[in-house]
Amino acid sequence: MKRRDFLSTSALGLGALGLGGCYREENRTPEGEIKVQKKVTIKLATSWPTHFPIMGTGVDNFAKRCFELSGGTLEIKVYPKNILVPALQVFDTTSLGQIDAFHSGVYYWKGKNSAFSIFGGMPLGLTSEEMITWLKFAGGMELWRELYAKFNLYPLIGGSTGPQMGGWFKKPINSLSDLKGLKMRIPGLGGEVMKKLGVNPVLLPPGEIFTSLERGTIDATEWVGPALDSIMGFDKAADYYYTGWHEPGSILEITFNKNKWEQLSPQHQAIITSASEEMTGTMIQEFRYKNAKALQELPDNVKIKTFPKDMMDAAKIALDEVLKLESKKNKDFKKVLDSYNSFTKINKSWDDISTKNFLNIRA
Amino acid sequence: MKRRDFLSTSALGLGALGLGGCYREENRTPEGEIKVQKKVTIKLATSWPTHFPIMGTGVDNFAKRCFELSGGTLEIKVYPKNILVPALQVFDTTSLGQIDAFHSGVYYWKGKNSAFSIFGGMPLGLTSEEMITWLKFAGGMELWRELYAKFNLYPLIGGSTGPQMGGWFKKPINSLSDLKGLKMRIPGLGGEVMKKLGVNPVLLPPGEIFTSLERGTIDATEWVGPALDSIMGFDKAADYYYTGWHEPGSILEITFNKNKWEQLSPQHQAIITSASEEMTGTMIQEFRYKNAKALQELPDNVKIKTFPKDMMDAAKIALDEVLKLESKKNKDFKKVLDSYNSFTKINKSWDDISTKNFLNIRA
Repeated sequence: MKRRDFLSTSALGLGALGLGGCYREENRTPEGEIKVQKKVTIKLATSWPTHFPIMGTGVDNFAKRCFELSGGTLEIKVYPKNILVPALQVFDTTSLGQIDAFHSGVYYWKGKNSAFSIFGGMPLGLTSEEMITWLKFAGGMELWRELYAKFNLYPLIGGSTGPQMGGWFKKPINSLSDLKGLKMRIPGLGGEVMKKLGVNPVLLPPGEIFTSLERGTIDATEWVGPALDSIMGFDKAADYYYTGWHEPGSILEITFNKNKWEQLSPQHQAIITSASEEMTGTMIQEFRYKNAKALQELPDNVKIKTFPKDMMDAAKIALDEVLKLESKKNKDFKKVLDSYNSFTKINKSWDDISTKNFLNIRA
Repeated sequence: MKRRDFLSTSALGLGALGLGGCYREENRTPEGEIKVQKKVTIKLATSWPTHFPIMGTGVDNFAKRCFELSGGTLEIKVYPKNILVPALQVFDTTSLGQIDAFHSGVYYWKGKNSAFSIFGGMPLGLTSEEMITWLKFAGGMELWRELYAKFNLYPLIGGSTGPQMGGWFKKPINSLSDLKGLKMRIPGLGGEVMKKLGVNPVLLPPGEIFTSLERGTIDATEWVGPALDSIMGFDKAADYYYTGWHEPGSILEITFNKNKWEQLSPQHQAIITSASEEMTGTMIQEFRYKNAKALQELPDNVKIKTFPKDMMDAAKIALDEVLKLESKKNKDFKKVLDSYNSFTKINKSWDDISTKNFLNIRA
């Protein structure tokens, strides 16, 4: 794509407003500072199909909210995947300033820097609420912004999925040994752990997963949770639906080209920040509600199962090995992991006596 | 207080802006609708002391955010308790239009209508995230607005505490029978349940709780969690700190006088809504972070304990009785409880296989 300046500004269409010569860009009143905003248009590309449920509609609503909050001076044009740029090139094109911003999953960019995978979530790690707490209160966001700045990017949290399911299997997994040689569609750190447990992780474009599972080209696949999985029809291709461990709180991002971000007024920056916070909470709640609803409607052939203890014990050991190796190879990874682990430690001692304890009492 | 019109509007101080005769209240551009906002000032009273940690600073930040998002056209003046009105008169004064809005806990208003206590949270019930999901996605908010409209009020979610602790006890509770005759400071539905379990619930102003506990005038007190409890110094007056069951997700509110709300422009309404959503997420995360930190710093005399199983079993039965009785007495209570229970049912089947299951696997 040819480099273009997508961020166009126009001074509020002043002719149309009839303000003409009276217009001043910045004005102060006795009550405080009031700025008449220039109209700004942002081109934002996503990694999702048009109006993709929850994630895609989430960013649509985010854009609508920015428009409302700004009284129409901030227009974010959302481009679903492959309209402006392919789904997985949104990082590079935003980095180069060919588009202004993107909405995607952070786990996609571990090839850029393996440390980024930690900002996207950790197998057996923090839940969505805990991830966001680490990012906002315990130093995670500063590290994320520092590392993304090297790519001329400025990230904001752009939603989270809540706890994901472990995936669909054609046969039950009764012990660790049942994993041996299974072909499973599973990306990211979860895939690396599964590989150590004997699985053959495969990558497939979303459009090919159902057919591959149905025909037995793969034995298993993970996706998200009941709400999105039932749209994919996986319940028609596999009977065993396993509870989650590898994506307890995956983080999505709204990331800006850093120069574009810095050109925005403080008011527009605040609007984008607030709207992204609203989007994040709402997305987690919407996933909860729609997963709960979809779970009720799964057909009778579906059996909900939990992975056996020997497999989870082995997964913890395998994960530890993966993290240790990567910490040796990449000092950024180590730095981010150290911050993540410091928070995890204090969080766990609180969560164990609060949320976890309560959910067990309530049952 | 004499009835006054606290919501003052002035047309952007146009003289000062030098826009004079060019000003039009509403203008459209080819790119969309752009309104030049009138400056609006809102008087909001809280039930907290000045800059009270997390809750009070949360509403301070909410007001600051509204100012930023609006480019200074929406100013929310926050009045801590007893400055404009006493802490527990904010509901009435806002209802009457003597002030514009308030920030408080929903559980305070069960004397107005017992159904309101359900919007504030339920012992052994939904967590903060689950409460907000019920309110926003499963009909809770519509019921809340319908019932508050009878008091000329328009509520928004204004934060939540996350899971609270069960309270401080001078002696350990090893079985249900140890509760007999204990004097405990515990309000709300939790207090009603405790009463059925043999406790003598007492109400005390916050300023008197510590001294009463230290001197043995009361045997126990609940408050919030480690972050706020340690400020109260309870660890110096009691050794046994019990995990929570009665306030798993208490909801706070930012509630407007309904006429004042309807006079606001759609842009200002959107700003308040987004800022309250941001505040809600941030408050839950801040409670998590600060509780986790404060837990590490509790002195050695403090023993974290979980209530015995026979007590929790009895609490479930007692709660059921309290809810059934109130449902018979108040049809609003029944209507809200039915909605709450419908969501709770589908939520629980999802949460049991997702968050709860995961937190147990992770351990």
